Parts: sequence; C-alpha cells; structure tokens
Amino acid sequence: MSAGRVIVYGGRGALGSIVVKHFKANNFWVGTIDLVANDEADTSVVVNRDDSWAAQTTAVIEGLTAALGGEKVDAIINVAGGWAGGNAGSKDFQKSCETMWSQSVWSSTITAQAAALFLKEGGLVTLTGAQPALKGTAGMIGYGMAKAAVHQLTKSLGQDNSGLPKNSTAVAILPVTLDTPMNRKWMSGADFSSWTPLEFVAELFHKWLSGKERPASGSLVQLVTKENKTDLVVA
Amino acid sequence: MSAGRVIVYGGRGALGSIVVKHFKANNFWVGTIDLVANDEADTSVVVNRDDSWAAQTTAVIEGLTAALGGEKVDAIINVAGGWAGGNAGSKDFQKSCETMWSQSVWSSTITAQAAALFLKEGGLVTLTGAQPALKGTAGMIGYGMAKAAVHQLTKSLGQDNSGLPKNSTAVAILPVTLDTPMNRKWMSGADFSSWTPLEFVAELFHKWLSGKERPASGSLVQLVTKENKTDLVVA
Repeated sequence: MSAGRVIVYGGRGALGSIVVKHFKANNFWVGTIDLVANDEADTSVVVNRDDSWAAQTTAVIEGLTAALGGEKVDAIINVAGGWAGGNAGSKDFQKSCETMWSQSVWSSTITAQAAALFLKEGGLVTLTGAQPALKGTAGMIGYGMAKAAVHQLTKSLGQDNSGLPKNSTAVAILPVTLDTPMNRKWMSGADFSSWTPLEFVAELFHKWLSGKERPASGSLVQLVTKENKTDLVVA
Repeated sequence: MSAGRVIVYGGRGALGSIVVKHFKANNFWVGTIDLVANDEADTSVVVNRDDSWAAQTTAVIEGLTAALGGEKVDAIINVAGGWAGGNAGSKDFQKSCETMWSQSVWSSTITAQAAALFLKEGGLVTLTGAQPALKGTAGMIGYGMAKAAVHQLTKSLGQDNSGLPKNSTAVAILPVTLDTPMNRKWMSGADFSSWTPLEFVAELFHKWLSGKERPASGSLVQLVTKENKTDLVVA
C-alpha cells in the first residue's frame, strides 16, 4: 500500500529528481510533469517546450486526468524553473523576460489549476519563488518579475475562495542558492556551505505533506543556509 | 517652443487620453502607443493586439525610433492595462492570466526598454501597478500576478545598473479604483468619493516630470482617495 500520492512538476530537474527519489524511497506513488519523462516515477506527463501556455495547460490537465483515474493527490510540488540575467538595456531583454515567464509562471498557474482539480482536501501545493525577488533584481529583471508573480500567486492561493480544496495549504519556497550540479559548475568558487542541499528541500516537502510544521497557507518561506544549516524564515 | 517631450503608453485609454490632453494643454510634444491612434497626440505608434510580445516590442521600438529622430524624451508614462477576475478553479483561469500578462506586463517591459533607449538623463518613467496586488487577490489571480510583476519591475528599475539613463526615476502608481467612465458603468452603486480622479493622476505625472515632489526611484506609490481627497502613500 502506498503512503500517498504526489505530483512533482519539474520532476526531471536537479531538485525535482531528488524530490522524486525521496518520495519513491518513502513508498509514495509519484507522478511527474516535465519536458522529458522520469523513469523512476510511476507516471510522467510530458510537456512540449514549444507549446503555448494554453496548450501546455491542456496537456497537463488531460495527462493528469488520465493518470489519476479519479484519484486525488496529497501534494503537488512545483520545482520547475530556470534562470536568466539581463537588465532593461540588454539586447535580449524581452526574450529573457519571456523565457523566465514561461518557465516559472506557466508551470505555477498550471500547478494552481491542477491543485483545484486534483488535490485532496487538506492537501499541500508548493511553488518555487526566489529570495532575491523580494526586492528589486536589476541584473536579472525578467527572473525577478516572474518570481514576484509566483510569490503573489502563492498569497492569492492562501486566501479563502482561491479555488483550492478546503483546508489545503499553498506555500512557496524562496531559495537563495540551491546546491545543484549546475550551480557548482557555474559558481565553482562560491561558498557551498551557504547553499541549500536538495535533500533538505525534499525532506521539507515530506514533512509539510505529513502535516508537520506546515506553514500557514500563503506563506513565502525563505531558505536561508549558513554554515551548512538551513533556517526557514517566513517573509 | 515645446515644454518637453512625453510618451504615453496606453494613450487612448480612459486615463491615457486625459494624460495626453493634460500634457498637450501644457505645451508638450506628446507621442502615444496604443492599439489605436490618438489624434490629439503629435504622433501615435499603433500596436497590433494579435502580435506576440517580441513583435510588439519591435514595433514600438522601431516606431519610437522613427518618430523621435534621435531626440530624447522627458518622460515615458505607461497607463496601459486591463482587468479580469477569476480564481484557480475558474474555467477561464489560464486565459485570464495570459490576458492580464499581455496587457500589463508586456507594455511595462516595452516601456522599460524604451526608457533605456529614449529617456533623457534625469527623466521619469512611470508604470501602473495596483494597490490590491500588494497582498493576495484570490478573486482576480491573473490580475494580481501581473501587477505584482510590475511592482517588482519598478523596484528593479529603481536600482543602479537597471539599464535606465543616469539619474532617471522609475515609479509605479498603485491605484485602488480610478474614476473612469467604465468603472462608473460597472460599479454604479459605489462611493465615487473614494475613487481617484483621472485629472489628479495627470497632474501628478506633470508634477513629477517637473521634478516636484518626485518619489525615490523604485517607489510604489499608492493612490488612496477618501472623501474626494487623494493621499500618496509609498508602499
């Protein structure tokens, strides 16, 4: 018998793969949504990168409807996203804004819609914001805008009448820097002891799913790591 | 001799038309950007509603390049936008998010890019946010997300290295309700004395352009109207 059902949006990314492994190791049924399938998951909904926002929405909702066959899930965890720099004077400014929007916000609205349809009462939905986007981000304007939109979406989902099932909890994690292989590659001289380990995040989701130390719905939870210790600081 | 040069994005909307009239009456050269031309303006750049974000960006930048012929402007005022309701359970949720994004955020990133290219040093760029989007907006999720993105964009533009010209000021106005004909039509039973008059906003832009009581760059300025008096409250 499974411990529960979890959907991981971005389930083939660096963080997503770890989250999938964690929940599989703990006997959960796990479905993923990503540009490619995750063979460790019980099912994968594959999204086409070139599809529009509307088409990706339809593909995910139809894919989950088929995969779940009327069952509801305990959590929908969105860890999809990306990064791009650039300010208003950058040659590729518009393009960077559009890429950031499609990677972070499309997946977040689709997650919200999926939660309205497939989450159990009392379930958990998590989105991924970014701690720097609580302020201005002049050197990465498109990234900051997209993450600020995700933050505000989280606050909306935390209110009554958001369309989510009764007693469900919507939370955003706001990492500073996650300890991913890509970040180690591109910022090889950085202080890794201030980066948040992916396993910590996976365990955090599991704890919240189990009802332990679950933040108030609508919370923006900053992941502040210092000397290999991560504190959760609600913004 | 003209008093200066102003670009009004959304210059055929309810607020934009009043802003154009105001600056024309005060001897400014005025250019507009909108889905239709404003014959009261000195020049109009017309954007095609069906064009993509990238195509609208190109059309506006090319249109302004041709219209300005190497001149710079004193202010770029963006009052484009729209409104749509809906929560995560709404049938048209994705569509409402997309419409809000294209109306508010596309025009705002294009404004930022135009400011990087065409604004004078010490110039003014204004964007239009929304006071309710400082918190969650469960009944109008797409609207709140788009406006939150505009707020964060404003903070980014207010920082050093945003790409804007030296000593320029980026400010967002955050109205609660503007006293427009459409709002009077759709909320005919409301208390109009708590709505902000369009002329007040036009005069505010003029004052800021002239360097009077200009807020710090990056400010989010709430327009709080009570008993026909509007206070400016920095968020």
